[in-house]
Amino acid sequence: MTQSQGTVQPLHPALAGLETPCIVIDAAVMEANIAQTAQLARQAGVKLRPHAKTHKMPLIAKMQIEAGAHGITVAKVSEAEIMADGGIDDIFIAYPLIAESKIRRAILLSKRIANLIVGVDSEEGARVLSRVAISEGHPLQVRLEIDTGLRRTGAPYEGALELARLVHGLEGLRLTGIYTFRGALLDGQPTKDIEAAGKAEGAMMVELAERIREAGIPLQDVSVGSSPTGTYAATVPGVTEIRPGTYVFQDRTLVEFGTCAIDQCAAYVLATVVTSRPEEGHAVIDGGSKTFATDVQPNTNPLQLRGFGHVLEAPGALLERLSEEHGMLRTTPGTSLAPGDRVRVIPNHICSTINLHNKVYLLEEDRVRQLDVAARGMLE
Amino acid sequence: MTQSQGTVQPLHPALAGLETPCIVIDAAVMEANIAQTAQLARQAGVKLRPHAKTHKMPLIAKMQIEAGAHGITVAKVSEAEIMADGGIDDIFIAYPLIAESKIRRAILLSKRIANLIVGVDSEEGARVLSRVAISEGHPLQVRLEIDTGLRRTGAPYEGALELARLVHGLEGLRLTGIYTFRGALLDGQPTKDIEAAGKAEGAMMVELAERIREAGIPLQDVSVGSSPTGTYAATVPGVTEIRPGTYVFQDRTLVEFGTCAIDQCAAYVLATVVTSRPEEGHAVIDGGSKTFATDVQPNTNPLQLRGFGHVLEAPGALLERLSEEHGMLRTTPGTSLAPGDRVRVIPNHICSTINLHNKVYLLEEDRVRQLDVAARGMLE
Repeated sequence: MTQSQGTVQPLHPALAGLETPCIVIDAAVMEANIAQTAQLARQAGVKLRPHAKTHKMPLIAKMQIEAGAHGITVAKVSEAEIMADGGIDDIFIAYPLIAESKIRRAILLSKRIANLIVGVDSEEGARVLSRVAISEGHPLQVRLEIDTGLRRTGAPYEGALELARLVHGLEGLRLTGIYTFRGALLDGQPTKDIEAAGKAEGAMMVELAERIREAGIPLQDVSVGSSPTGTYAATVPGVTEIRPGTYVFQDRTLVEFGTCAIDQCAAYVLATVVTSRPEEGHAVIDGGSKTFATDVQPNTNPLQLRGFGHVLEAPGALLERLSEEHGMLRTTPGTSLAPGDRVRVIPNHICSTINLHNKVYLLEEDRVRQLDVAARGMLE
Repeated sequence: MTQSQGTVQPLHPALAGLETPCIVIDAAVMEANIAQTAQLARQAGVKLRPHAKTHKMPLIAKMQIEAGAHGITVAKVSEAEIMADGGIDDIFIAYPLIAESKIRRAILLSKRIANLIVGVDSEEGARVLSRVAISEGHPLQVRLEIDTGLRRTGAPYEGALELARLVHGLEGLRLTGIYTFRGALLDGQPTKDIEAAGKAEGAMMVELAERIREAGIPLQDVSVGSSPTGTYAATVPGVTEIRPGTYVFQDRTLVEFGTCAIDQCAAYVLATVVTSRPEEGHAVIDGGSKTFATDVQPNTNPLQLRGFGHVLEAPGALLERLSEEHGMLRTTPGTSLAPGDRVRVIPNHICSTINLHNKVYLLEEDRVRQLDVAARGMLE
């Protein structure tokens, strides 16, 4: 942790009335994060298309666009629908669509907003997309997803040119780009060297795009990058777009990657101590695995995070175990946590944590405002 | 896994229209689970107070009560409010209340329904409960939570008699029972010997209750037991109530504890294959850590579960990695999974998985009915 106890501000009085556990977002810190990444993208000469899966709120997507983002990214058709309902009109569903019903929903959406792009990563998927687009009489803009090593979705890098030719030749589809998600990966292994990871990802994609263009397919977009790697991927000539998500709030993962300091984390869980036995080094807060996402586990590579979150009020305390509604802290001698005390915890992974909450509280200068997490649980 | 491929029923045609990923609940299997546990409690002569954190739906709580449960258990005041709104009138909030605002909400609720009980585990908590109950002019029924080894909330076992005396003496509070949650724990370690764990838990609590009664405090309730251990804890003379939750659906955890067979799991995730590369033993489904809870991790004690879920259609496949919206399967040679195919997955932990979903689909004989997960995300 780069954080020192000296930087911790006292709890804002406007939070006193909130029931816990809940998520609080510091508006000023979030706005600074939004502005900083928009500026980085501008300087690098790439478009910014933030992944809205982090916040799941149209209001925040709009703030990102006002700051310079060219559109947003989502993972699911239902998320895209919520964002469109909230006034966002340039959306990339960065996920291979395969079900006819969802492709129909995507086409309906595409008729409502200025720009919709969907993912494709297989011949089967491309043929279904084409068939539905033809039957609906509405062409679909698609990007080909490339697997650059994460072994998730995405066409294998080696066979991608062939698949690009096939997609390009299908009626009803307009292939305009390629995209990938690689994360912090280098030579097939998780890494903390995000600069090398980002640059390698960018280079692989630009090289592939060149080969596809040489085959006569006029690709516009080469879209790459996550919150840790996007800044570096953006510097590779030929990259046209980055899609970071987490940067809007930041979290413990990004702190450990060196992307930000702990006081640049805009979102935290406000929790209450329910049980405390200081003589045993034991305290319990009122949030567990239904409050803090557990997808980024402690003690795993590459970050080896300590526990499930960083407690601002007791940075030496280890949030060691979670059950559904209990967070067990191992405290150090001298830690003063009594039942009823409130603490702020920066979670390991804010995206999946936000998704556990129905609402968040936006802390502005002197007031706190409740925001619904409109697209939470949008899985379809 | 006790499951063999032979028991897998084909996918019901009524599910064809559902978008994925989603949770489907087989009504007949759920009803059998509800009836079986009600019968076990009757035979043992204990009350059944199911924990509603598993399903978070008043409709299912009502089915449990109609089958013989005496009331329900919840973890949070906001869950209790949702259940009361849904017509449940006997609720135990099995969590130490410490915040004045929540205690006020509990008292309001207590005026609306036939019976409300709340948890207490510390002198600080007891004094706040008493003060608020007095100021609201409404007594609160409380149970003292005991830590029987899990090191979570709960008063330390050794000091519990003293705390019971204090709580009993406070104005505005009516101490009527003690309760614990111990889970599958024996001699401080996770165990698969749930019979020994359940009996030890019951014996510890009965012994403590006797000492408290000898001190002149007329305890009625000795409430214990989880889904794996409740059946055994119920057989200990002096135990008056069990609080299993997961049994209503069952899950992979209970299968591995030997509590049920895989075909007694009433809830599964219906997912679609989006990417498949059989030659590499690789396939991806459209659900990840926002679809399958990750709180019960693979390869951890005592169960050492294999992956994040059991795929009914491909029992040899390992659901090895999850990102937010992707589930990566390692498939065996001969596994036939093509993009667009649908699979059913029994998750490791159904309680936290249900909480990720806004709705579930109840599969009755020949129709499928959408149910809102009314109390999902109710964290307060």
